[in-house]
Amino acid sequence: MADKKLVEAVTSMEEDFAQWYTDVVLKAELVDYTSVKGCLVIKPAGYAIWELIQEELNRRFKETGVENVYLPMFIPESLLQKEKDHVEGFAPEAAWVTIGGSNELTERLCVRPTSETLFCDFYKNEVHSYRDLPKVYNQWCSVVRWEKETRPFLRSREFLWQEGHTAHATAEDAKNRTIQMLNVYAKFMEEVLAIPVIKGQKTEKEKFAGAEATYTVEALMHDGKALQSGTSHNFGDGFAKAFGIQFADKDNTLKYVHQTSWGVSTRMIGGIIMVHGDNDGLVLPPRVSPVQVCVIPIQQKKEGVLDKAYELRDRLKKAGIRVKTDDTDKSPGFKFAEAEMRGYPIRVEIGPRDIEEGKCVLVRRDTREKLEASLDKLEDEVGTLLETIQKDMLERARRHRDEHTYIAKTKEEFVKLFSEKQGFVKAMWCGEQSCEDEIKEKLSVTSRCMPFEQEKLSDVCVCCGKPAKKMVYWGKAY
Amino acid sequence: MADKKLVEAVTSMEEDFAQWYTDVVLKAELVDYTSVKGCLVIKPAGYAIWELIQEELNRRFKETGVENVYLPMFIPESLLQKEKDHVEGFAPEAAWVTIGGSNELTERLCVRPTSETLFCDFYKNEVHSYRDLPKVYNQWCSVVRWEKETRPFLRSREFLWQEGHTAHATAEDAKNRTIQMLNVYAKFMEEVLAIPVIKGQKTEKEKFAGAEATYTVEALMHDGKALQSGTSHNFGDGFAKAFGIQFADKDNTLKYVHQTSWGVSTRMIGGIIMVHGDNDGLVLPPRVSPVQVCVIPIQQKKEGVLDKAYELRDRLKKAGIRVKTDDTDKSPGFKFAEAEMRGYPIRVEIGPRDIEEGKCVLVRRDTREKLEASLDKLEDEVGTLLETIQKDMLERARRHRDEHTYIAKTKEEFVKLFSEKQGFVKAMWCGEQSCEDEIKEKLSVTSRCMPFEQEKLSDVCVCCGKPAKKMVYWGKAY
Repeated sequence: MADKKLVEAVTSMEEDFAQWYTDVVLKAELVDYTSVKGCLVIKPAGYAIWELIQEELNRRFKETGVENVYLPMFIPESLLQKEKDHVEGFAPEAAWVTIGGSNELTERLCVRPTSETLFCDFYKNEVHSYRDLPKVYNQWCSVVRWEKETRPFLRSREFLWQEGHTAHATAEDAKNRTIQMLNVYAKFMEEVLAIPVIKGQKTEKEKFAGAEATYTVEALMHDGKALQSGTSHNFGDGFAKAFGIQFADKDNTLKYVHQTSWGVSTRMIGGIIMVHGDNDGLVLPPRVSPVQVCVIPIQQKKEGVLDKAYELRDRLKKAGIRVKTDDTDKSPGFKFAEAEMRGYPIRVEIGPRDIEEGKCVLVRRDTREKLEASLDKLEDEVGTLLETIQKDMLERARRHRDEHTYIAKTKEEFVKLFSEKQGFVKAMWCGEQSCEDEIKEKLSVTSRCMPFEQEKLSDVCVCCGKPAKKMVYWGKAY
Repeated sequence: MADKKLVEAVTSMEEDFAQWYTDVVLKAELVDYTSVKGCLVIKPAGYAIWELIQEELNRRFKETGVENVYLPMFIPESLLQKEKDHVEGFAPEAAWVTIGGSNELTERLCVRPTSETLFCDFYKNEVHSYRDLPKVYNQWCSVVRWEKETRPFLRSREFLWQEGHTAHATAEDAKNRTIQMLNVYAKFMEEVLAIPVIKGQKTEKEKFAGAEATYTVEALMHDGKALQSGTSHNFGDGFAKAFGIQFADKDNTLKYVHQTSWGVSTRMIGGIIMVHGDNDGLVLPPRVSPVQVCVIPIQQKKEGVLDKAYELRDRLKKAGIRVKTDDTDKSPGFKFAEAEMRGYPIRVEIGPRDIEEGKCVLVRRDTREKLEASLDKLEDEVGTLLETIQKDMLERARRHRDEHTYIAKTKEEFVKLFSEKQGFVKAMWCGEQSCEDEIKEKLSVTSRCMPFEQEKLSDVCVCCGKPAKKMVYWGKAY
């Protein structure tokens, strides 16, 4: 059916998952490489996904009282250095502006890798009284981290993200906001991106530089590797003390604020590709697909076919569905392959005989299933099918995740699982970094998180055999 | 009426317009200064205006076929240097990254001041055949220009903007797109920002570095100075030749593409302030006001008052109006002053007696006019009043602009007008840069544009007396 010319060049994911990924992002025209090493162009098909993510997250953020702002992209070196752990975490990957307007700068400026220090410097002047709290600000921007190895969406020297930064009167308020935003991310990923996630806390070793606690949503990709998909950090009053952010409380005493930050990035697009994609290309969940339906006319030169295709497009558009008609002079087979590569959830095939019979064919991208639809009920049938696809994609991803989540009670089981299987392994941990270090060194496996939903699999650490404190999800990470 | 405590600190615009402007942007909480010299924080009230501008421009752009993309923020020096005029124009204001990941870079990277060179580098690989044209891409991002003197929104080292970059098969297509986008800007500014503009072409002296022709929309501020509010450039095939962007045309010959670029920035927010503001603060046109209606309860501790205020808010919100209730414990007078400072188009006053009588008071921000409204028709009355305010604000701005547009037929008139009046002066010009240079040096006046609507005011140049070629709008610029 689908023309093979277009899909031939995609390496199969069973053969080489990394190459499959690269082939798909390029052939689905999500991104392209540039002359700037480690930086990408996000092309229209990729950026439109990001716009839908932004729109939906903005809506969900604003419901919780978030306000958007914009802070400078430059951080003076002295500002970056105010919080010791933070600068140690980010300085090695920093890009520095040293010349401005033909002159050597007296103080070099870091291109923001993240904006905690700038927000602290801002809040220091904004917050005076308990009446000024909480501050719940967010910004959409790009950040720069000088990575050595880069991969489209997953790790690049510049990437787009949102970073929320909040200040609160009490430790409890900060803790609550940290968890609240983690839940916003988890719900968004499941409901919109159809990606089920494990919610939990990062270990000390894996937490954000300068945070008291880091929480994460972890997703499992099709190849069994883990993708950290969003993080939420509770800073306590550590940054407030480093920056002197104090307020007069109701009891008239000066107190330090408690802060949080949380972010997700274009990395999520990488997650969509690696959770849902197949050997014919992208498979987009309807809610985040810039084109939900592609109408493809069959024998389009026959009288009335193209007109009918436009009519169906206009009707679906009017019903609030994101739709396009492929009216190019390519063959139907080529158009099918292209629509599959780009991951459009439904294609509508309409030819002369269909028109005669008052029907058309709907083809699901996720299952390839073909369904006949009556033309006079098209809007309803397409609307319902989009909902079904969205639901099925989440279920399928959840099933894949669950089938690739294993339990190890002993070191032997643990090592065996990671040599034979690809996926998450749940195992008990003593709480010591030395065990994390040993596991990472020997198996290239990291602790993904200590899930909120704890189970007691055994009494002892899977690595050292000492008494266990936490159940941990372990995995190989992107 | 309005509490004076809040407004006292605003310098009157008649006394010192520049100080008035600074007072308003700070006290209306649009921006704040930062530790990064020449860079600002855009606070929630300011950023929300930018979000409305983005939303409306995106809608208008997409109607004309524009697709959004994202390109890197860094430009390798060798890329920036490919078009000679362009690099000469931008290099003096460039900020350079010279260190990345603790290492000196082998080639330094310019933080984008504008992205023509990056788009050319991208299009070079994207465009092969006439089938690939036109490319009509746009990006929303921040850019950096190392300015010496900075002012909030009007000129800062980093600012937010959109930059559209297109490639076309013919010179005519490029010319048409350049004008089309200028018209999009002009309509947007009049219909949404209530700012009337003069459309025209820049002189050679004032055109964009590397452009064949630059078109502009010029607005007149309240103090009689001109603000260049948006520009659209036709590059012809100059960049295409410098970067080697060629395509196989229908006739099977290789041709260079013709390109355009066009942009507007957060500078437009400065325009809104300086066209509509008054000595009590900001006055926002309803269509670009994040809060269109502020409901202020009078005697809010009396039973039922606050509930009624919330009810009105909810009703207006349901009618699609952006509304908030000020339920803080400040005095009504203070709330009035604050609502005025922030420029909310309508405030609704509702007290116990109003409730008894089934009415409320609407106060227009632009005229201070007070109107009584029946509570049961509130949505309609507010909706109509917002439209009236929008229309009146444009008319008022147009009248101010027209009343401050003068005609000079002789050099004496020209000099006298610029020494006595503040505004645009229309006068004839010979077309020689020497006259522009002389006028700039002696009067600090620049050619704003050669308007599309030409008039023949006299036969000779207002400066040198030689035969005139064009009528020009002259003015003092921001």
